[in-house]
Amino acid sequence: MQYVKIKDSIVEQIESGMLSPRQKLPAERKLAESFDTTRVTLREALSLLEAEGRIYREDRRGWFISPLPLRYDPTQTLNFSNMAKSQERVPKTELVAAKGILANKQAARLLDLQPFSDVYRVDRVRYLEDRPVLYVTNYIRPELFPNLLDFDLSQSLTDIYREHYGVVYQKIRYRITTSTLLGETAQALRATSGTPAMVVERVNYNQNGELIDCDIEYWRHDAISIESVAQLQR
Amino acid sequence: MQYVKIKDSIVEQIESGMLSPRQKLPAERKLAESFDTTRVTLREALSLLEAEGRIYREDRRGWFISPLPLRYDPTQTLNFSNMAKSQERVPKTELVAAKGILANKQAARLLDLQPFSDVYRVDRVRYLEDRPVLYVTNYIRPELFPNLLDFDLSQSLTDIYREHYGVVYQKIRYRITTSTLLGETAQALRATSGTPAMVVERVNYNQNGELIDCDIEYWRHDAISIESVAQLQR
Repeated sequence: MQYVKIKDSIVEQIESGMLSPRQKLPAERKLAESFDTTRVTLREALSLLEAEGRIYREDRRGWFISPLPLRYDPTQTLNFSNMAKSQERVPKTELVAAKGILANKQAARLLDLQPFSDVYRVDRVRYLEDRPVLYVTNYIRPELFPNLLDFDLSQSLTDIYREHYGVVYQKIRYRITTSTLLGETAQALRATSGTPAMVVERVNYNQNGELIDCDIEYWRHDAISIESVAQLQR
Repeated sequence: MQYVKIKDSIVEQIESGMLSPRQKLPAERKLAESFDTTRVTLREALSLLEAEGRIYREDRRGWFISPLPLRYDPTQTLNFSNMAKSQERVPKTELVAAKGILANKQAARLLDLQPFSDVYRVDRVRYLEDRPVLYVTNYIRPELFPNLLDFDLSQSLTDIYREHYGVVYQKIRYRITTSTLLGETAQALRATSGTPAMVVERVNYNQNGELIDCDIEYWRHDAISIESVAQLQR
């Protein structure tokens, strides 16, 4: 198939270093010309490269070479900034919204609450080297964190929990699935609707075994690689 | 957006039980008519549903409602058949090929071997209720398992390791990414090229800390949900 050949040839250029991370690809018309192919075939090649996490698209700006994914170990303490810095990446967090709401279906299910209970909802966008890669929504039990919304929530929640409330994460339940970026989530990540996403749902417990919050993370799928080591019990 | 509305309406029919797992959807033409929309818009809705793991396509057969995903805990002993049965699923394994080869790039990297070392390569397709959901390739160090290829390799490798060689998995390194099904892998899973995939790469160590084998798993992405619990060390 011609589009697989075009894909392989671009992969080769990435692996040999001729194309470097964050570099913009030429316009589709130019690319199609240089591979002596149609735009339809070229697009098939590009969408394979996107699915394999080799390139990503920014809405209205075009295609770019993906940087290395962030290695994410769900069995370690999860603080985005520390994780990024330890891998020599440049993290940034932008607060989208923080407010008290009545629990919706998803929050009630994850936090094991009665419908219409009060919860805090915090929405944030995480960046690596100024590229938005993660849209994360936290639902938090307000009775454990009075006045939480008064803090600067573009800072690490785990730091605020620890320093101001003496609460640390002790146990985490997580679920990893794949999905797609849509609507506001897509927009916040400068993605077109339908871009593939890795979804990490976490429910977090404190040192007393109490359920304290959950988070729903929508990652640009090429920006994350989940890696860990398991010791088997038998 | 009209296609998001169509998608939501189909999701509602799934959640209310009007559409049940493994049920075939009507032909695209009929569906487009019943939603009073164009086939282009309908296809956008279907591809969102596919990305969200609600429906899946079998090559030349059409669209089907996805069954519940298999819950997969990478920190537990990983035996596909036991895992499926404990979730009241019906597993089946088909051996595609088993042979001695010279290590390719991927095998050499994962097993930490010199290029052109001898390895066994075992390719298998795993089914749930007669639906192919997983294409798995194992690369195995032959010096630890003499005459392994004489066994019935549609059976559990971990059982053969334990019963005939006294070897058990003790430690597993794993990496989870997303990609796409292509070529023979797609065909074996009755998928069209470009279908989203969840990829699990594992490197397995025995009770003496020796690296014994690795496996590269291509899952139909709607067929798997990775779920686990982590106790944090601090």
